[in-house]
Amino acid sequence: MAEKQITKIGILGAGTIGGSVIKVLQDNKDIITQRAGTEIQIKNILVLPHEIPALQEKGLPATSNFEDILNDDEISIVVELIGGVKAAKTFMLQAMEHGKSVVTANKDAVAQFGGELFDAAEKNHVEFLFEASVGGAIPIIMPLKNSLTANRITEILGIVNGTTNYMLTKMTEDGADYDTVLKEAQAKGYAEANPAADVEGKDAARKIAILASIAFNSRVQFDNVSIEGITKITPKDIQHAANLGYVVKLLAIGKESDAGVDVRVHPVLLAKTHPLASVNGVFNAIFVKGYPINEAMFFGPGAGFPTASAVIADIIEIAKEIQTNSIGRFGCTCYNKKPICPIEETVSSYYIRLLVDDKPGVLGAVATTFGNAGVSLTSVAQTNSTVEDHAELVVVTHKVKHKNILIAQDELKKLSVVDEISSVMRVES
Amino acid sequence: MAEKQITKIGILGAGTIGGSVIKVLQDNKDIITQRAGTEIQIKNILVLPHEIPALQEKGLPATSNFEDILNDDEISIVVELIGGVKAAKTFMLQAMEHGKSVVTANKDAVAQFGGELFDAAEKNHVEFLFEASVGGAIPIIMPLKNSLTANRITEILGIVNGTTNYMLTKMTEDGADYDTVLKEAQAKGYAEANPAADVEGKDAARKIAILASIAFNSRVQFDNVSIEGITKITPKDIQHAANLGYVVKLLAIGKESDAGVDVRVHPVLLAKTHPLASVNGVFNAIFVKGYPINEAMFFGPGAGFPTASAVIADIIEIAKEIQTNSIGRFGCTCYNKKPICPIEETVSSYYIRLLVDDKPGVLGAVATTFGNAGVSLTSVAQTNSTVEDHAELVVVTHKVKHKNILIAQDELKKLSVVDEISSVMRVES
Repeated sequence: MAEKQITKIGILGAGTIGGSVIKVLQDNKDIITQRAGTEIQIKNILVLPHEIPALQEKGLPATSNFEDILNDDEISIVVELIGGVKAAKTFMLQAMEHGKSVVTANKDAVAQFGGELFDAAEKNHVEFLFEASVGGAIPIIMPLKNSLTANRITEILGIVNGTTNYMLTKMTEDGADYDTVLKEAQAKGYAEANPAADVEGKDAARKIAILASIAFNSRVQFDNVSIEGITKITPKDIQHAANLGYVVKLLAIGKESDAGVDVRVHPVLLAKTHPLASVNGVFNAIFVKGYPINEAMFFGPGAGFPTASAVIADIIEIAKEIQTNSIGRFGCTCYNKKPICPIEETVSSYYIRLLVDDKPGVLGAVATTFGNAGVSLTSVAQTNSTVEDHAELVVVTHKVKHKNILIAQDELKKLSVVDEISSVMRVES
Repeated sequence: MAEKQITKIGILGAGTIGGSVIKVLQDNKDIITQRAGTEIQIKNILVLPHEIPALQEKGLPATSNFEDILNDDEISIVVELIGGVKAAKTFMLQAMEHGKSVVTANKDAVAQFGGELFDAAEKNHVEFLFEASVGGAIPIIMPLKNSLTANRITEILGIVNGTTNYMLTKMTEDGADYDTVLKEAQAKGYAEANPAADVEGKDAARKIAILASIAFNSRVQFDNVSIEGITKITPKDIQHAANLGYVVKLLAIGKESDAGVDVRVHPVLLAKTHPLASVNGVFNAIFVKGYPINEAMFFGPGAGFPTASAVIADIIEIAKEIQTNSIGRFGCTCYNKKPICPIEETVSSYYIRLLVDDKPGVLGAVATTFGNAGVSLTSVAQTNSTVEDHAELVVVTHKVKHKNILIAQDELKKLSVVDEISSVMRVES
């Protein structure tokens, strides 16, 4: 690594992340050059035609023709930051076919076409890195692929969506309802005008697909993930959770179970003592359980400008690989082909809130129904309801298969004294 | 990496960490082999003569002669887990001279002789890794050396000593005093019979010397660190801190300042909202501030059995380097030679508790004395004292150089109304 070199890169996109990568490569040029053992030089930037002048005014190279990057033999690394799936995937595959290593922040493309992209990288003897696709700036992909390699990972839990974590934090702190908090998040720029991908859990699902693939060394794709969003969370549930010693969080969950890799995204009641419970606002964190590490957590900014940290780390890694002739050393780590655990077979504790008639014998009838469905209860508490002649039952179960909860729900609905199953959420302690 | 290989290692020491490394290499052999791309085989274990039979009974190789490992050409990695400084350093240097890469968990040796060990590694074209020397199982050295390479790190704060963190957590939770909690920690095996290295902050100082060297790319040695332990912390200070919105933690601190690298270990009042504030018990965590990442935290078990995770990660890293002919790719990252900031020039906010005469004009006299010493105050609160005719003053300052605090202390001592400067602690928010 002694010889002074220049590593030339092409960047696709100059939006939020692209812009921050360009800025940080300039601002931290001295230390990046020292640590990479080579200067990282932006040879070209792919943008829309109308964006070219603004970049050129700053003395930056720019083109609206991907071929200019693809056919530039000096460019050894293509950094895909345009987002979306179709064009991004095509560009990445083409770059690899032209012998260029690829860095991307594109969770959608990795979660959907990770296998294909890795195959192309291997076939073309190039590297494919995507640290920024999960947890923004937080180092998690690389730590999973090297620092934690000794571990048999049993569980990976992530708060990997800043929008929903901000919203749930606000609902918890202010007692505000979902709609109010969503509007506030949109006003602050933390939620998009169309918040569906975030609040419905799809964004988190893409990220846990990526994390689970690496943690369990078996490909998990977006459509393998069972997804439930936060749209039905009420201040009442958050209050009940608090009384029971929990906070409500949207978790992305990957667990290795006897029935296969269990991957899901849904709100949970999380014990207040859990390291993830104090991760608030737009911050992200990923919690890992395994043997021998027991538990570890990685915390940091999940999006925005800091994401440049992850993208550039990948660029520097490849620059070092080029210097040491070890290109492709990370590579695909999906060595196995494990089944996906059907959602019915997944095991959790559950919190269930019911609206019932306020009369004697109801609690017994409800408890018996759970028992008949094979669901054992930890606690049942009756509280007042705002609905006249009604009461609320808050039930917490022992660990049980999801299919038993579905049976219990069906049977509860048949009881004349049960007027509503108001909410059903899993519990993590 | 396609070809099946065997990487043979020699382990020095079979104590707590050595034993756990041996066990995990056996228990997780399948996944370790898969991820390393090679089998990691224990070729020999150096122990004391009387320890040999116990290992041999388990079917493990053992020797009491280091030469057996040193002269074994099949061994490519020596894993130093005997602890101590002198013999460990000699063994590591000899191993490197014999072309073997070295993995160690030895914070003492790295903090004291890191430069020498790195020089030997470079000279002999071998790798030298020491992830387990800081933060036990927590990935922090490797993330600093690769995942965070894009960042200009301005600050690194660590809770890196489990003994003292357990003690301070207990003092906070139970209101117990130092001596009571120390005895309890000793009874539970969290503190040693001679707890000096932990409670006086030396253990943490070794770790921050290592972390600061990597974060700021400039060698920091143990004797560069200003150290203050937790022996003077009282339940009263913890209570005052709580009232002000802080918890008391022993922090290992590295900051890049205009006057050089500022490295110290001392108790601080840490804002309850800080990510490190909720790190309790024997857990460790390292918090990093920088540009562009803003902030990140790495949390996990700081000692004991899980440490095998870090040691084996280093072994696997070297095994992969061997396969890709990129041995030594991590190497020394102390590219610069930055001065150490003298403690007098370090800048902090301070919490100061005084025992004063309970009479009019005292608060004014004290505040004036601070002002004359160039120390500006955020708050001064008078509370009752258990000492008759006396009151307690709790003062919090704005950020100020340590030398001004020293001047203020000298001047305060001259005031007849000030009977005692009961405690002085820095504040981190």
